[in-house]
Amino acid sequence: MDEITLKIHADDLILMALKEDVTNEDVSTACVLPAYAEGEADLIAKEEGVIAGLFVFGRVFSLLSDRVTVEYLKKDGDRVKKGDLLAKVRGDMRAILTGERTALNYLQRMSGVATYTARLCGLLKGTGIRLVDTRKTTPNMRVFEKYAVRVGGGGSHRYNLSDAILLKDNHIGAAGGVKQAVRAAKEYASFVMKIEVETENMQMVKDAVEAGADIIMLDNMTDEEMREAVRYIDHRAIVECSGNVTLENISRLADIGVDIVSSGALTHSAPILDVSLKNLHPVR
Amino acid sequence: MDEITLKIHADDLILMALKEDVTNEDVSTACVLPAYAEGEADLIAKEEGVIAGLFVFGRVFSLLSDRVTVEYLKKDGDRVKKGDLLAKVRGDMRAILTGERTALNYLQRMSGVATYTARLCGLLKGTGIRLVDTRKTTPNMRVFEKYAVRVGGGGSHRYNLSDAILLKDNHIGAAGGVKQAVRAAKEYASFVMKIEVETENMQMVKDAVEAGADIIMLDNMTDEEMREAVRYIDHRAIVECSGNVTLENISRLADIGVDIVSSGALTHSAPILDVSLKNLHPVR
Amino acid sequence: MDEITLKIHADDLILMALKEDVTNEDVSTACVLPAYAEGEADLIAKEEGVIAGLFVFGRVFSLLSDRVTVEYLKKDGDRVKKGDLLAKVRGDMRAILTGERTALNYLQRMSGVATYTARLCGLLKGTGIRLVDTRKTTPNMRVFEKYAVRVGGGGSHRYNLSDAILLKDNHIGAAGGVKQAVRAAKEYASFVMKIEVETENMQMVKDAVEAGADIIMLDNMTDEEMREAVRYIDHRAIVECSGNVTLENISRLADIGVDIVSSGALTHSAPILDVSLKNLHPVR
Amino acid sequence: MDEITLKIHADDLILMALKEDVTNEDVSTACVLPAYAEGEADLIAKEEGVIAGLFVFGRVFSLLSDRVTVEYLKKDGDRVKKGDLLAKVRGDMRAILTGERTALNYLQRMSGVATYTARLCGLLKGTGIRLVDTRKTTPNMRVFEKYAVRVGGGGSHRYNLSDAILLKDNHIGAAGGVKQAVRAAKEYASFVMKIEVETENMQMVKDAVEAGADIIMLDNMTDEEMREAVRYIDHRAIVECSGNVTLENISRLADIGVDIVSSGALTHSAPILDVSLKNLHPVR
Amino acid sequence: MDEITLKIHADDLILMALKEDVTNEDVSTACVLPAYAEGEADLIAKEEGVIAGLFVFGRVFSLLSDRVTVEYLKKDGDRVKKGDLLAKVRGDMRAILTGERTALNYLQRMSGVATYTARLCGLLKGTGIRLVDTRKTTPNMRVFEKYAVRVGGGGSHRYNLSDAILLKDNHIGAAGGVKQAVRAAKEYASFVMKIEVETENMQMVKDAVEAGADIIMLDNMTDEEMREAVRYIDHRAIVECSGNVTLENISRLADIGVDIVSSGALTHSAPILDVSLKNLHPVR
Amino acid sequence: MDEITLKIHADDLILMALKEDVTNEDVSTACVLPAYAEGEADLIAKEEGVIAGLFVFGRVFSLLSDRVTVEYLKKDGDRVKKGDLLAKVRGDMRAILTGERTALNYLQRMSGVATYTARLCGLLKGTGIRLVDTRKTTPNMRVFEKYAVRVGGGGSHRYNLSDAILLKDNHIGAAGGVKQAVRAAKEYASFVMKIEVETENMQMVKDAVEAGADIIMLDNMTDEEMREAVRYIDHRAIVECSGNVTLENISRLADIGVDIVSSGALTHSAPILDVSLKNLHPVR
Repeated sequence: MDEITLKIHADDLILMALKEDVTNEDVSTACVLPAYAEGEADLIAKEEGVIAGLFVFGRVFSLLSDRVTVEYLKKDGDRVKKGDLLAKVRGDMRAILTGERTALNYLQRMSGVATYTARLCGLLKGTGIRLVDTRKTTPNMRVFEKYAVRVGGGGSHRYNLSDAILLKDNHIGAAGGVKQAVRAAKEYASFVMKIEVETENMQMVKDAVEAGADIIMLDNMTDEEMREAVRYIDHRAIVECSGNVTLENISRLADIGVDIVSSGALTHSAPILDVSLKNLHPVR
Repeated sequence: MDEITLKIHADDLILMALKEDVTNEDVSTACVLPAYAEGEADLIAKEEGVIAGLFVFGRVFSLLSDRVTVEYLKKDGDRVKKGDLLAKVRGDMRAILTGERTALNYLQRMSGVATYTARLCGLLKGTGIRLVDTRKTTPNMRVFEKYAVRVGGGGSHRYNLSDAILLKDNHIGAAGGVKQAVRAAKEYASFVMKIEVETENMQMVKDAVEAGADIIMLDNMTDEEMREAVRYIDHRAIVECSGNVTLENISRLADIGVDIVSSGALTHSAPILDVSLKNLHPVR
Repeated sequence: MDEITLKIHADDLILMALKEDVTNEDVSTACVLPAYAEGEADLIAKEEGVIAGLFVFGRVFSLLSDRVTVEYLKKDGDRVKKGDLLAKVRGDMRAILTGERTALNYLQRMSGVATYTARLCGLLKGTGIRLVDTRKTTPNMRVFEKYAVRVGGGGSHRYNLSDAILLKDNHIGAAGGVKQAVRAAKEYASFVMKIEVETENMQMVKDAVEAGADIIMLDNMTDEEMREAVRYIDHRAIVECSGNVTLENISRLADIGVDIVSSGALTHSAPILDVSLKNLHPVR
Repeated sequence: MDEITLKIHADDLILMALKEDVTNEDVSTACVLPAYAEGEADLIAKEEGVIAGLFVFGRVFSLLSDRVTVEYLKKDGDRVKKGDLLAKVRGDMRAILTGERTALNYLQRMSGVATYTARLCGLLKGTGIRLVDTRKTTPNMRVFEKYAVRVGGGGSHRYNLSDAILLKDNHIGAAGGVKQAVRAAKEYASFVMKIEVETENMQMVKDAVEAGADIIMLDNMTDEEMREAVRYIDHRAIVECSGNVTLENISRLADIGVDIVSSGALTHSAPILDVSLKNLHPVR
Repeated sequence: MDEITLKIHADDLILMALKEDVTNEDVSTACVLPAYAEGEADLIAKEEGVIAGLFVFGRVFSLLSDRVTVEYLKKDGDRVKKGDLLAKVRGDMRAILTGERTALNYLQRMSGVATYTARLCGLLKGTGIRLVDTRKTTPNMRVFEKYAVRVGGGGSHRYNLSDAILLKDNHIGAAGGVKQAVRAAKEYASFVMKIEVETENMQMVKDAVEAGADIIMLDNMTDEEMREAVRYIDHRAIVECSGNVTLENISRLADIGVDIVSSGALTHSAPILDVSLKNLHPVR
Repeated sequence: MDEITLKIHADDLILMALKEDVTNEDVSTACVLPAYAEGEADLIAKEEGVIAGLFVFGRVFSLLSDRVTVEYLKKDGDRVKKGDLLAKVRGDMRAILTGERTALNYLQRMSGVATYTARLCGLLKGTGIRLVDTRKTTPNMRVFEKYAVRVGGGGSHRYNLSDAILLKDNHIGAAGGVKQAVRAAKEYASFVMKIEVETENMQMVKDAVEAGADIIMLDNMTDEEMREAVRYIDHRAIVECSGNVTLENISRLADIGVDIVSSGALTHSAPILDVSLKNLHPVR
């Protein structure tokens, strides 16, 4: 989430989120703060986790006012404990009050995703398996949520429908079979793209290997089926395991031999990490 | 989520979400479906819950193609069981495949919020307490998430910073006290607005009542403190209880006497409801 | 019209207004000023009135160039006389010439609204009645025009259709009566919202009071009818008088006992205040 | 204001105006009309004038719902009397209620401009003088206001800074004199553009004629000065009279001999024409 | 360029292009066609080539008016001769006249690219080499130009900076060498992405192969160097040849053994194909 | 292409072009440059020509990062030779790498247009004929391409359909003849607009002169026909020659007596000028 991505992609979304929260003005703040007043507040973690989105948090205030600065005491990826001071926000108190909720809404969700991802990664530690995200992100939050997965130690699957090929059952059905689908993809798609095939049984796995798929996804298979598939594939393709991978069941995957585990839950069901802006007070 | 709100507010957001998922084209689909082909698919519930967002789901396809229609077999607010058929999507198979993920990303989140809300509402049933949402929504998802809370049986707190006054500790601090803050609000704000004050102790409660606040929020108080506050207020203001209200602890509020319970978890931590588009097949 | 509102809401509108006035370039200026040249001009009042919109005026130039600064000699709300120097604009002469008309179009309209509002407020002085605006604003000018009403001493009615409830004859008709409409509103709407009912006769007034309306609007009633309504309501609701309130007839309302007078003319029929940018000359 | 202009330019502005008036939903209407209900309402003139903007009025409803139709009984440019039925709006009552104010805000302003323009044109009738508008339009309303001037019988000056050359005192000053400014314009500008010079005295008029200006504007001159200028110019350029032309003083221009009279008041100070949507009732 | 891509991506760009060409209205057309009149015109090829962009051409008119239809007599990819009738446009003559230039500007450029691509593809026929495009497209025209390359028989390189990895000299320099750069890419990037390395000499080629690059680009090498590289790589990576490939010099690549030839000239220097809208006449 | 035009018109287009090239991030750069690193690169001409668009080139980097500066060693309009250093770009290496292609895509196209225009202007040197552009520009590139024509020494025809009147065969047909069309234009259009008529034979030329056209375009006439037309017109209107004017055939126009030659090829078929960003290296 560097300066460039913020400028090209995040700013528009953040500004929209601010407009969503402010139709014309923050009435409560306008009642009591008719003019510029300088203040300072502390960003505090209220539970343990992995922090992600500090620059997004800060950007909210920059987009509201040129007169707010944020001093960061932690950085994205840091594991924080309850009570840790993460940042100090200083400047126009009106902007701090008006931006607070939107800034926290971003930071809490992104940190929630990073924290959940880190937990799952921990369970796969030492197995050589890479945990990756999916396209099951919140609409208009993908750039933030996929970044948070990375911060939590996860990797990326394709970003969207345009940057990689994943032939699912419906594509395969439309083409008339796994081999025909892979052939169609090789013909149509750019030579820079890998081809992944989603398989549901051993016949599909065999067809995919034979057709020259680069990646084979084992979808909702039993552990036994997966073991057989991994043996058959024998490093001729990258093997991805997918389907209802959660905190509770991920450990069983450790010795099956898959290369990649993808989990939609990373972005669609991670609870937020509680973070709070405290102790706003006037300065000088 | 009627036609009007979809047209004015949702369409822009849905279109952005589609652009987020499609940089130029859905490559996988383009590989195997070079031309129009008519297909049909079933929208199926994969777990029990309350469905919300069916029209948003359908709108995704309308925005992609004039040649997709959705037949709804359930309606928003219906309680669905695993395996229930919710809708049938029919038309351009390319649009169905391209829009599937975005449509489900909306529907699953909205239904997750509705389902979680319905569970909490169930726990308050018969108490006369109204459960309401907060501004702790996902950025650029507020119009969808607040609607989903309603579908689940919850009510609404203010929509954003512009449509009601909530004087929090920082506003009170800036004004110099509860009474001064309420006075400033009465002076500044429109006469059509109610004034709510967030209180942390009995003194603040008393000041708020005396100053003529319309609504008094009891923030993170113990049950005992809340009981005392309710007694003191004695219907001179609406009483709202706020602060870490969850499935686990909400029942204890039943007989304290508050009018309103607000919960950020409704929108920031509800897991999705699993719903899936199945059995896409060509039709003549 | 603080920095925050300018950034979130006004900038987009001002930039659009500039694009409306400049398809590609200001040809006349480009003919004679091929390169940067520093100049200075005076903003002068050409008639007496209340000035409003100085920061919007200045923002037009900031959005055109980083090299224009405005020194303000008056502030919004000041009563100015013909010939008064309001501000000095200094910097890139091309930006000054290109932005002049758009900057003045904003300032003149906003000052016109403030001036007209101040006149009406003057006529109500000492009566305790609050004069407020309506939604009869110029499309895409509401944030500016409602602000100008405030600068002129007026108050605000609801900002738009989403932030308060006003049940008019058609809503009442659809609900089946005043009482049913108020009941429907109490059920549907957020508890933070007040409920206002528009009434046309005593029966409606009585129904509204009984139903517990927070605000009762007396629409196009005769003075006698209003007196009767005020007596009946007896402080059980806020009383608003509406309907063709103008400079000519507003004084008669002084002793009727209404709390609020709303006037669409404030924003839909105030003539501009004549203000002009004079004496542009090169410096250094 | 044909279909094309509506589609390319007006739709965006109208949609913005609707968003300005509806943050998420029209709460009052949602309270009493939870579902589609068909209704019909009458658009009635409440005072005499020239109607302008009927299609814009209708477009507001089309942009809100596919289920509203407008039957027009008058057309733009028609002179209407108090009580005349202008159009019937039929369809989704929710859309009619939600769009009413925005639709009227456009129609009233546009008709106000057309009516005022028609009055001034009437005073110039038979003189051969053409009355034209200026760039003193309301920001983001130009396309509507300039159209309304035309409907009222007026003509157009340049649309914006890019489509014609008007050399004012500051341009002339920057160039070093009238002749230098005209020469610079001939050199820089497209050959398809006419060159107009704003003059304040006879010397400037003479210089402009000599330099080959196509149009000469007499700015704030006395009648006597204008007569002299017209005699001198002697049809070698089009002559425009400008400066505080109002209903009260326009007649005196009749026999001076100018070709064009421009008036900012047409768009910056015309009061609205009162028009109202009445008698909404359910049908069938 | 199917319906979906047109809706999500092309419509916004086409509408912007129309606004670029029409500030408020098409004055010339408005002068002579004050009302709807139905007409018909023929789209004719004025030179030989490959046509591309017919649906974009048609969409321009749809976006201007609901009352224009286009009947296509050729389809994208067809080779056309001078004088061929490509399509008939029928409907609102105002929309046909107003949209003509924008529609042709798209069609001529896209057909120019397709025609040029087809010529180069012809020179590589039978060699097994695939000709592909680059990112050297006209800003805001990529979706159209890359499609046109495909229509002309060419293939696609990466669409943009986000969907594939191409390590150029600067990336290699920043990483400290070819091997380090490839290693960094394998670590950072998604497992669905191929890694391409741009090489300038044999050492770099060797390093790239050893590091496991999926694609090796030979940049501006002599034929002899390329032959040596191809021999060394020996099918361990896809080989792309790049650098000033034009009509004049492309044939020499036939027997060198590269898999892919990329050419920026396809999109940055193809002249347009002359196509014209003729014989507009009123019907009925 | 001054600061004002960049701010109002170019920034939006440049930002869109950057988004076209970066869906979420520049993956290749992110692989090897995880953090800010300062670098410097040289902008070098790779062939002879006229440079145009240097500020647009620089703006691309400013829009990506606040930490890139460009030092210009040449200015727009300078004739450059192969190997000339045009500018030095310094700052955030990530922004330099990410923006390079978009910046060059603008600069190469604009310089290509300027170079081609300069060549054609050279062929008309000393003839008094002005070479001008047309509306045959690339969609969404008009502001850049028309500026480049100017930089190359050409002049401007109308910018778009709204700023001048050009009556073509279809307009004339719709009006019922040349005279009727000119009359309609005089009636409808603003008095600040010139009227141009496109003619195909002597009768039309005569009608146009008689009707008082300001400009007469001779469309696709033979040299002999043009000579006759010029003689007939005899300075009563500006004479423009149009129709397939290219490098090869422009010289023949020198002594025919036309005032203006317009050429679509200037913007639709000029090849790019090759310019390259070289030698990026870390500094400090």
